[in-house]
Amino acid sequence: MDDSTARFLRFIRDPDSKSARTFEGFVLLLVLYSLLIYSLETLPGLSQQLRSFLSLSESVVGSLFVLEYSLRVTCSRRPLRYIFSFYGVIDLFAVLPLVLGIGTNGTIIRTLRIFRIFRILKLSRYSKSVERFIKAVTVAREDLVIFSLASVLLVFMSSVGIYHFEHNAQPDKFPSILHCMWWSVVTLTTVGYGDAFPITVGGKLFTSLVLACGVGIVAIPAGLLASALTKVREDEQE
Amino acid sequence: MDDSTARFLRFIRDPDSKSARTFEGFVLLLVLYSLLIYSLETLPGLSQQLRSFLSLSESVVGSLFVLEYSLRVTCSRRPLRYIFSFYGVIDLFAVLPLVLGIGTNGTIIRTLRIFRIFRILKLSRYSKSVERFIKAVTVAREDLVIFSLASVLLVFMSSVGIYHFEHNAQPDKFPSILHCMWWSVVTLTTVGYGDAFPITVGGKLFTSLVLACGVGIVAIPAGLLASALTKVREDEQE
Amino acid sequence: MDDSTARFLRFIRDPDSKSARTFEGFVLLLVLYSLLIYSLETLPGLSQQLRSFLSLSESVVGSLFVLEYSLRVTCSRRPLRYIFSFYGVIDLFAVLPLVLGIGTNGTIIRTLRIFRIFRILKLSRYSKSVERFIKAVTVAREDLVIFSLASVLLVFMSSVGIYHFEHNAQPDKFPSILHCMWWSVVTLTTVGYGDAFPITVGGKLFTSLVLACGVGIVAIPAGLLASALTKVREDEQE
Amino acid sequence: MDDSTARFLRFIRDPDSKSARTFEGFVLLLVLYSLLIYSLETLPGLSQQLRSFLSLSESVVGSLFVLEYSLRVTCSRRPLRYIFSFYGVIDLFAVLPLVLGIGTNGTIIRTLRIFRIFRILKLSRYSKSVERFIKAVTVAREDLVIFSLASVLLVFMSSVGIYHFEHNAQPDKFPSILHCMWWSVVTLTTVGYGDAFPITVGGKLFTSLVLACGVGIVAIPAGLLASALTKVREDEQE
Repeated sequence: MDDSTARFLRFIRDPDSKSARTFEGFVLLLVLYSLLIYSLETLPGLSQQLRSFLSLSESVVGSLFVLEYSLRVTCSRRPLRYIFSFYGVIDLFAVLPLVLGIGTNGTIIRTLRIFRIFRILKLSRYSKSVERFIKAVTVAREDLVIFSLASVLLVFMSSVGIYHFEHNAQPDKFPSILHCMWWSVVTLTTVGYGDAFPITVGGKLFTSLVLACGVGIVAIPAGLLASALTKVREDEQE
Repeated sequence: MDDSTARFLRFIRDPDSKSARTFEGFVLLLVLYSLLIYSLETLPGLSQQLRSFLSLSESVVGSLFVLEYSLRVTCSRRPLRYIFSFYGVIDLFAVLPLVLGIGTNGTIIRTLRIFRIFRILKLSRYSKSVERFIKAVTVAREDLVIFSLASVLLVFMSSVGIYHFEHNAQPDKFPSILHCMWWSVVTLTTVGYGDAFPITVGGKLFTSLVLACGVGIVAIPAGLLASALTKVREDEQE
Repeated sequence: MDDSTARFLRFIRDPDSKSARTFEGFVLLLVLYSLLIYSLETLPGLSQQLRSFLSLSESVVGSLFVLEYSLRVTCSRRPLRYIFSFYGVIDLFAVLPLVLGIGTNGTIIRTLRIFRIFRILKLSRYSKSVERFIKAVTVAREDLVIFSLASVLLVFMSSVGIYHFEHNAQPDKFPSILHCMWWSVVTLTTVGYGDAFPITVGGKLFTSLVLACGVGIVAIPAGLLASALTKVREDEQE
Repeated sequence: MDDSTARFLRFIRDPDSKSARTFEGFVLLLVLYSLLIYSLETLPGLSQQLRSFLSLSESVVGSLFVLEYSLRVTCSRRPLRYIFSFYGVIDLFAVLPLVLGIGTNGTIIRTLRIFRIFRILKLSRYSKSVERFIKAVTVAREDLVIFSLASVLLVFMSSVGIYHFEHNAQPDKFPSILHCMWWSVVTLTTVGYGDAFPITVGGKLFTSLVLACGVGIVAIPAGLLASALTKVREDEQE
C-alpha cells in the first residue's frame, strides 16, 4: 500500500486525523443541506422550477451518500463490523430509499439522516464528553428513576383530579381522563398553551396545589444531571 | 414448613428476592392495567360492548387484588403490623370498593391504587434513594421553608398589586384579590395560559417587576434540592 | 418584678422561648385572618350580612393589633429602639389606619400587614438561614449583577429587534419599543401569555435566536443562588 | 504636564479611579437617556411639541457623545489602539449617524449605543467576573456544545414529527416543516404562546414524549454554566 492510499484510508479509520475531519465536515454539510431540502419541499406554494431544483439536488446528494457508503464499506478494515455498527446502520438508512429505488419524495426515512450528525461524537474530545454524560446518568440513576416515576404519578393524579373538578364545567375541554393528561403535561412542564385551563374555583385551587409541588419535581432531574456532570468533570481533573 | 412453602412465603417477606420481584412486577402491571381501565371508562362515546369488557376487566382485576390482599395478610409474619403499615393501608384501599360491595363504577377510591406503584420503593436500591431524598430535604429544610414562605408572600403581594392595577380595566378577568391569586400562580410558575394578563401600563410594569424577582424565587427550591441531593450522594461515596 | 410578670415579659424579649412562640403563632394567625378578610372584601356580589361580618371582624382584629402594639411598646426594654426597628415600623403600619381613624375599607396599607409574617424569621434557626442567604448573595454578587445587566440588555435589544420585524405586520400588538418590552419580558421569562407573538418569518427567526441565548441567561441567576446557598451551608458544617 | 491635567487624563486611562467612575457614570446616564429617547420616539400619537423636544434632546446627547469621543481619542496614550479596540468601535457607532450627517431619526445604529453599557465591565471587579464566566464556559465547553447540538437535533426531529402528525389536521397552523420549527422552539423553551398546538391524539402523545426528554435537555446548559461558575469561584477562593 503506497503512501497516498494510506493517507486516503486514514480518514475512514482515524476520526481525529486532519483529512478525516475535512471529509467528515463535508459530509456534515451534505447532511445539513439534505435536511434543508427535505424541509423546503414541504413548503406550500413552491414554483415548479424550485421543486425540480430541490428534486435534482436531492438526487445528487443521495448519489454522493451512496458513493460515500461504498467507500466506507470497501475501505474499512472490517466491512461487516462497520455495516452492523451504530454509525453503519445510520449511514445505511441515509442511502436506503435511493438504493431500493423507492424514490425519495416525502419519505420520512430521509429524516433519519439527522442522526448522521452524531458522527461528530467520534471526535475524541466529544466522545469523552459523552462518556462523562453516561457516567453522570449512571451515578444519578436511582434518583432520576424516582423523579421520573414521581412525574408520571403526578401527571396521572392531576389528570384524575382535574377531570373531577372540570369535567362538568367544560365537558368539551376535559372530556376524559386521557384528555386531561394532555393538560397535565402542558401545565407541569409550564408550557401552558392556553388550549385548556381550569375555570372552576376547585379546579384552580387544585391546579395551584399541583403546580406548587409539581413544577419542582419536574425541574429537579435537569438540575440533578447538571450537578452530576459537573461533579464527574471535577473528579476527572483531580 | 417445607421448602416450597418457604420459597413461596419469601416473596411476601423479602422484597429483594427474585420470586418477590416477579410477583411485584405482576402486581404492578395489574395496577397499571386497572388505572388504564379507569381512564378509558371516562372516554365519551364508548360502545356498549367495550364498556362491558372494561367493567368485566375491572371485576377480574379487583378480585385478583382481593386475593392478593388475603395472601399478604395470611402469609405475613405479623398480619396486624402489615394491615396498619403504609403499604397495607394502600393495599386495603385498592380492594375496599369491591369488599364493601359499593361497586366500582366512577369511584375515585380506585385511583388511590396508583400509590401501589410506590411498592417499587421497597426494593433496597430505591429505598436508599428515598433515604437520600429525605436527608437532602432535612439538610435544606430551613432554606426550603424560607423560599416557600417567600413564594406564598409573593403570590399574595402580586395578587393585591395586580388587583389595584387591573381591576378597573378588566373587572371580568380580575374581579377580586382571590381571583388574582390564580393569575399570580399561573404567572410566577411561568405557565402563562393566557386566560388573564395585564393590559394597563401600570399592570405590565408591575408584572415585569414581579417576574424579575419572582421567577428566581420560585425556581430556587428545585435547584436547592438538586444540589443537596448531589451533595448527600457525594458524602455517601466517600 | 415577680415571677409571672417576668415570664410574661419574656415573650417580648426572647423570641425563642415557648410562650413567645405561642404568642407569635397567635399573632400570625390573626395576620392571616386579617389578610383573608381583606381579600374576601374585594369579592363582587357579597351579601350585606357577610359584608357587615367582615367589617366587624376587621375592627376586632385591628383592635387586637392596637392592643398588641401597645403591649410591645410598654413591655420592651427600650421602647424607642423597638418603635424604629424594622419590625416595629411594620407593626405600626398594621395599626395605623385604625389609630388615625381613617377607617380601613379598601386601604392598601392593610396589606402591609403581610410583612408581619416575616416575624417568623426572628426564630433563631430561620435567622441563620437568612444570614446564609445574605452570605450567598454577597459571594455571588458580581455574577448576579452581570447576569441581571445582561438580562436588561437582552430585554432592550430584543424589544428593538422585534419592533423592527413586527411593527409593520402587527402595528396594534407591537405599536412601540416600549410596548415590545412587555413582549420581551413575557417571552424571556417563558411565561408566554399569547397576547402578542411574532407572525413574520423574520420575527420568528429573531425570537428563536433570542430564546436560544436568552432563556439560559435569565435562568442562570437562580442556579447561581442555589449553588452558592448549598456551598455556604457546606462551609458552615465543616 | 501639570497636576490638574494629569488628574483629568487619569479618568481616560485608569477606569478604577474615582474621577473616571464619576465620568463613566455620567456617560452611562447619557446612554440610558439616549435609549429612552429612541424608545419614546416610536410611541404612536406623540404631540408635535414632545416630538421636537425628543429630537432636540437627541441632538444634544449626540453632540455630547461626539465631544466625549474626541476627548477619548485625543487624551488616549495610543489613539489608534483605542479607536480599533472593542470599546472604541462601540463608541464610534454611538456618534456615527451624527458625524456622517445622516440624521438620527429612526436609525437603528443608535440602538448600538446600548453596548456602551458594557463599559461597566472595565471596572476591575466586574472584569474578574467576566474572566470567571469565560473560564466557566471553557471548562464546560464540550458539554455545552453537546447539549446545544442535542437541542438543535431535538428541534428538527420534533418539527418533522409534528409535521407528520398535525399537517393534515391543521394545514394552516403547521403548513411546512420550517413553520413547525417555530412551534418546536416555542414549545421546548416552554414559552407556549398558544398560537399553534397539536389537536390530534398522535400529535399530543408525540408532544408529551418530546417534552419529557426535551425540557430537561434545554434546561441543562443553564444548570451546567451555573455549576461551573460556582466551581470556578470556589477554586479562586482557595
